[in-house]
Amino acid sequence: MSRAIVSLNAGSSSIKFALFTLDADGPRHAAAGKLEGIGIAPRLVARDAEGTVLVDRNWTNGAGLTHEVLLHDLFTWAGDHLPEHEIIAIGHRVVHGGMWFARPLLVDDALLAALDALCPLAPLHQPHNLAAIRAIRALAPALPQVACFDTAFHHDRADTATRFALPRALHDKGIRRYGFHGLSYEYIARTLQEIDPELAGGRVIVAHLGNGASLCAMHDGKSVDTTMGFTALDGLMMGTRCGAIDPGVVLHLQTQEGMSAVDVEALLYNRSGLLGVSGVSSDMRALHKSDDPCAAEAIDLFTWRAAREAAALVGALGGLDGLVFTAGIGENDPTVRAVICERLGWLGIAIDPSANACDAPIISTADSRITVRVIPTDEERMIAIHTIGALPTAGGGQ
Amino acid sequence: MSRAIVSLNAGSSSIKFALFTLDADGPRHAAAGKLEGIGIAPRLVARDAEGTVLVDRNWTNGAGLTHEVLLHDLFTWAGDHLPEHEIIAIGHRVVHGGMWFARPLLVDDALLAALDALCPLAPLHQPHNLAAIRAIRALAPALPQVACFDTAFHHDRADTATRFALPRALHDKGIRRYGFHGLSYEYIARTLQEIDPELAGGRVIVAHLGNGASLCAMHDGKSVDTTMGFTALDGLMMGTRCGAIDPGVVLHLQTQEGMSAVDVEALLYNRSGLLGVSGVSSDMRALHKSDDPCAAEAIDLFTWRAAREAAALVGALGGLDGLVFTAGIGENDPTVRAVICERLGWLGIAIDPSANACDAPIISTADSRITVRVIPTDEERMIAIHTIGALPTAGGGQ
Repeated sequence: MSRAIVSLNAGSSSIKFALFTLDADGPRHAAAGKLEGIGIAPRLVARDAEGTVLVDRNWTNGAGLTHEVLLHDLFTWAGDHLPEHEIIAIGHRVVHGGMWFARPLLVDDALLAALDALCPLAPLHQPHNLAAIRAIRALAPALPQVACFDTAFHHDRADTATRFALPRALHDKGIRRYGFHGLSYEYIARTLQEIDPELAGGRVIVAHLGNGASLCAMHDGKSVDTTMGFTALDGLMMGTRCGAIDPGVVLHLQTQEGMSAVDVEALLYNRSGLLGVSGVSSDMRALHKSDDPCAAEAIDLFTWRAAREAAALVGALGGLDGLVFTAGIGENDPTVRAVICERLGWLGIAIDPSANACDAPIISTADSRITVRVIPTDEERMIAIHTIGALPTAGGGQ
Repeated sequence: MSRAIVSLNAGSSSIKFALFTLDADGPRHAAAGKLEGIGIAPRLVARDAEGTVLVDRNWTNGAGLTHEVLLHDLFTWAGDHLPEHEIIAIGHRVVHGGMWFARPLLVDDALLAALDALCPLAPLHQPHNLAAIRAIRALAPALPQVACFDTAFHHDRADTATRFALPRALHDKGIRRYGFHGLSYEYIARTLQEIDPELAGGRVIVAHLGNGASLCAMHDGKSVDTTMGFTALDGLMMGTRCGAIDPGVVLHLQTQEGMSAVDVEALLYNRSGLLGVSGVSSDMRALHKSDDPCAAEAIDLFTWRAAREAAALVGALGGLDGLVFTAGIGENDPTVRAVICERLGWLGIAIDPSANACDAPIISTADSRITVRVIPTDEERMIAIHTIGALPTAGGGQ
């Protein structure tokens, strides 16, 4: 029987999970899956490390099943079908660590209360993260749980990078530029330190381009600036999110167009970004396949804005040594990478088209002044690493 | 008797004006003044070109006097005290030219109706601009009036620079990144063409840093990108305005803090920026004099953000040849200029401290890769030039 850690990422309609066994050289991926369609038609699919399907289950009349009931079923399934693993802890992605939490923490009553208090800062995500923690506490009260914050990697930036030009009282109350995707950025920083320590010590921009997208400016592996702000709306154009827009637009839609704040929220989160501009899809792959000129326009805007924001971060870093692409689009879309790099050519970036075409680890030419890398991210593994580290008796082994 | 043009800039509580005589080499500044405190305690002050006060008038029980009444009084005063000038036309700064108007236009009924339709895009400014035009039509129906748009200089940018990542229907309806301070930028572009045509043909960022503040990226004298967007709230931190903030903040203040859209609007326009962060003043000069650490923090954020946004515009330009400072802070604040330039040192900018200290026309060193200039802006003169140009029988001379 091997000791194992589960990483959990609970959202409004889905729960993603991954199981890692504890090996001497760190967590080893053993299985992963997703419970999706919660509230509509739940479906659980899990695969082992080789990709073999371990379970593919639908619930009849599942629309009324809560996260709690489904987590219970997931636990039961894991107990029945993964008997060779002893789950010693569960690590959670928690979107918001607020002003205080700069590193992963073992969950206790006091922490849960403090995290509850942060729900107004992330009302669409934080409550689901915490509900999963509470559901597992009810199922397995003795099982240690660790909260890993998406904001933590950005916690120690200089004050300027965290501050809006708003009245001081609002900043003190927590209305700040927090930044997100921190678990992804931390994983990339850690990986870069292993594979290219010289570059890791320099000024690097990491482009986390997925359905959600942001950039992080790192110096010596630490976050200096990032494009997301107070919420996951800000910064880059995303699949369905608008990214940065003039705050006056939000006010205009209400005072002049008669929308409510809740209407505007739904518009900016769910109907904007690639979907809104293209009118075709929020999925970059579908846009590449489309011959609708609006699809091409959406891709053009996505790359233009990514390059513009990358330049802003170069300003925050005072120069650039490396650029890393990661996440769905960043890891798998040579076209988007090539256009962004071309737009950043003035910085001394030159791409090797054949390396780029096959998602090679290094896609810049040998004489490019800036090294450009593709590094697959692994937030689940980062959560597992943190979870092991946060346990009272840290360390792995069977 | 000399023919003259009046430039007028009508706001909610003030009307600024300048009188230019028509000389062979262009408009010559003859007098300027300001009617301020409209609605509270109106005061009119005007000076001639040498700075001699021509009038300093208060109205007893003036709180009830409208823009129309005060404009009438101003006209009467001008007729009585400037009899040597024949006013042949009035040019107006009109904040919004919307999607259509790319150049100054002679006012007629159709134009006024079209500009009325743009009021929802700039409800705090456009109605006052148009009210002044109407008041003067009533006073002097035959006097030609010309509308000069603050958006026009940015009109011809590429689609990417004008588009938010919002649903296409909103863009088509006019929710776009328009950009402002266009009359200032046009004046600088024109002046740069005269004094440094080689630089004017290159990639230049103009930093209009006043109580309102924005940056414009120009290539060959044309606007390529700018930091202000749909309204005058976006982009740089300003005296009392927030500049760019996460749209999620606007929503949070309403859904979580119980503010109305109108409350938030007042907060973002009037109580944010340098004033909000410092808690001391919206005036950069007062912040320099203050020994409150919050004042220093506000200045630090102002320069950090200006440098970060400048870098973003370098990205949009694909490199940089020149940087021009203008407007109140840009023309008169060596400290702010020095810090911004230092933060942009990675671009190859080097400042000559003694040239910078005395607001010299060129403040970069001889071997700075980027030329840095200080050019006083003159929006009133630009309006006068446009007004002359838009008259049916264009041209000057007495």
